[in-house]
Amino acid sequence: MSATRPFTIACIQDGVLPDRTATVDATVARIRDAHDKGAQVIVLKELFDAPYFCKKLDQARFGLAEPVDGPTIARMRALAAELAVVLIVPFYERQAPGLYRNSAAVIDADGTLLGLYRKMHIPHDPLFEEKYYFAPGESAAVAQPAGCPGPARQAGGFMVWETRYAAIGVLICWDQWYPEAARITALLGADVLVYPTAIGWHPAEKATFGDAQVSAWRTAQRAHAIANGVFVAAPNRAGFEAEAGTDGIEFFGHSFVSDPFGRLIADAGTEPTTLIATCDPALIEDTRRNWPFLRDRRVDAYRPILERWLA
Amino acid sequence: MSATRPFTIACIQDGVLPDRTATVDATVARIRDAHDKGAQVIVLKELFDAPYFCKKLDQARFGLAEPVDGPTIARMRALAAELAVVLIVPFYERQAPGLYRNSAAVIDADGTLLGLYRKMHIPHDPLFEEKYYFAPGESAAVAQPAGCPGPARQAGGFMVWETRYAAIGVLICWDQWYPEAARITALLGADVLVYPTAIGWHPAEKATFGDAQVSAWRTAQRAHAIANGVFVAAPNRAGFEAEAGTDGIEFFGHSFVSDPFGRLIADAGTEPTTLIATCDPALIEDTRRNWPFLRDRRVDAYRPILERWLA
Repeated sequence: MSATRPFTIACIQDGVLPDRTATVDATVARIRDAHDKGAQVIVLKELFDAPYFCKKLDQARFGLAEPVDGPTIARMRALAAELAVVLIVPFYERQAPGLYRNSAAVIDADGTLLGLYRKMHIPHDPLFEEKYYFAPGESAAVAQPAGCPGPARQAGGFMVWETRYAAIGVLICWDQWYPEAARITALLGADVLVYPTAIGWHPAEKATFGDAQVSAWRTAQRAHAIANGVFVAAPNRAGFEAEAGTDGIEFFGHSFVSDPFGRLIADAGTEPTTLIATCDPALIEDTRRNWPFLRDRRVDAYRPILERWLA
Repeated sequence: MSATRPFTIACIQDGVLPDRTATVDATVARIRDAHDKGAQVIVLKELFDAPYFCKKLDQARFGLAEPVDGPTIARMRALAAELAVVLIVPFYERQAPGLYRNSAAVIDADGTLLGLYRKMHIPHDPLFEEKYYFAPGESAAVAQPAGCPGPARQAGGFMVWETRYAAIGVLICWDQWYPEAARITALLGADVLVYPTAIGWHPAEKATFGDAQVSAWRTAQRAHAIANGVFVAAPNRAGFEAEAGTDGIEFFGHSFVSDPFGRLIADAGTEPTTLIATCDPALIEDTRRNWPFLRDRRVDAYRPILERWLA
């Protein structure tokens, strides 16, 4: 069941404060503000309550992970229920001793924890050492946390969540570079794909590549909107984070919401801000009727996409 | 074997003249001009030597099709050999009585006809009635015309051609909206994806949707460059074509060449022109090393992409 009425989505673009409680407090204030401005679905940045700790390998940082039944998600569930908003809460999940994930909790507008999406594509680059910190999501259906209803539909580790206001496809950051992930999640019936993100500039690269990196980041995701006829909402981290022995990372913001034809309907610069956009599901069907891409997919011909290389 | 040295590609953006001979003559002059400016690989627009005849159903228009061993391709082969250029020649192919294709002949720089790519994704929209005129390409390997060596590699109907100057992935127009086609063709080892195109504005839509349509068209294809780390070259038709009983189509040009990070390195407006751009294959590897997307594909998880809908 996709949304039948327009829904209003917010992307919270911000950084973190020196301790977790202060960061969560600030985020709660931003969520309340977004709700006051009409937001019904509110999406936070990747790993919302922690510094981007993957900048180097440090065993102690596994300690930043928190179980899904820990205090942070509990607080977000209470807030969702109080405000009657859907919250997408990306966090560092402690699943078991020695098993940690880059996850997003999907909380419905009555405070129900619907379940978790676990990031499928894990990067590994200088200052983005995520393969050290995160086990990837599974390619098969797996049990959700105890008591959670789970996604409405899933396939290959990709998931769509039926919430009070919209059918939401949750993906995380590096997933955004993979058209396969967007396609499968859209085919699962999403009205909107959300991409909580932590992407930034290496200070030494910014002058030469900074603009092109922002453009590539937006272009890849706007193309998912176009190819699939869905809304896309991408909240990114903002601000500089230091790391001893490195130049740090300047998270570049530039969060946005795209309509199903790739048009930006809300977009940010580099400063902390909250984007709010109303998404009319009627535009999904209208867009898909005008240029009916889904009809003409050659599903008989795509099997080679299951290979890593064909040359 | 991908290219090891930079190659120079040209996109010829033009319209057609009232008769085929005049159109081919004009195209030959443009090809000579592109060669004089250094082009080694020259790509023509979709159905280069015919008006865009798919604007309505008319049985007589099947008569526009010509066999691959007909005079037009013969003339292009001789020209390729004379100038030592690779030519991508999209044309209306008569394969057998009652069986016609939207094809592209791939001609190597010694005049060898390497073979044909046949358009896989066939649109069907007001004034773009292509399902009437064209059988789609096959999802399995099929014999190439007699005497042709065929593509260097193929999978699912998608093909890469080893030419003197570059490994070329040929796709046609509506194919450009399908990330699956770009992905498979890139995995076959293409240095560049080429998309001969005939896309235009319905005059009644232009004021409201014209800019967004151009932007969506470019964005979708620049995203293929980014996701796959390949060059993309898209020559579009230009100029107005009338059709009795309709408002006609204003083909919108805006041809472009994108580098592997989605940056435009050559781009056109609406007027006839020839774009020329040099593509350095070293940039492909450099781009893929900086943000190594190909490494992290979840080929274990993409099987659901073989379905048409999952909800």
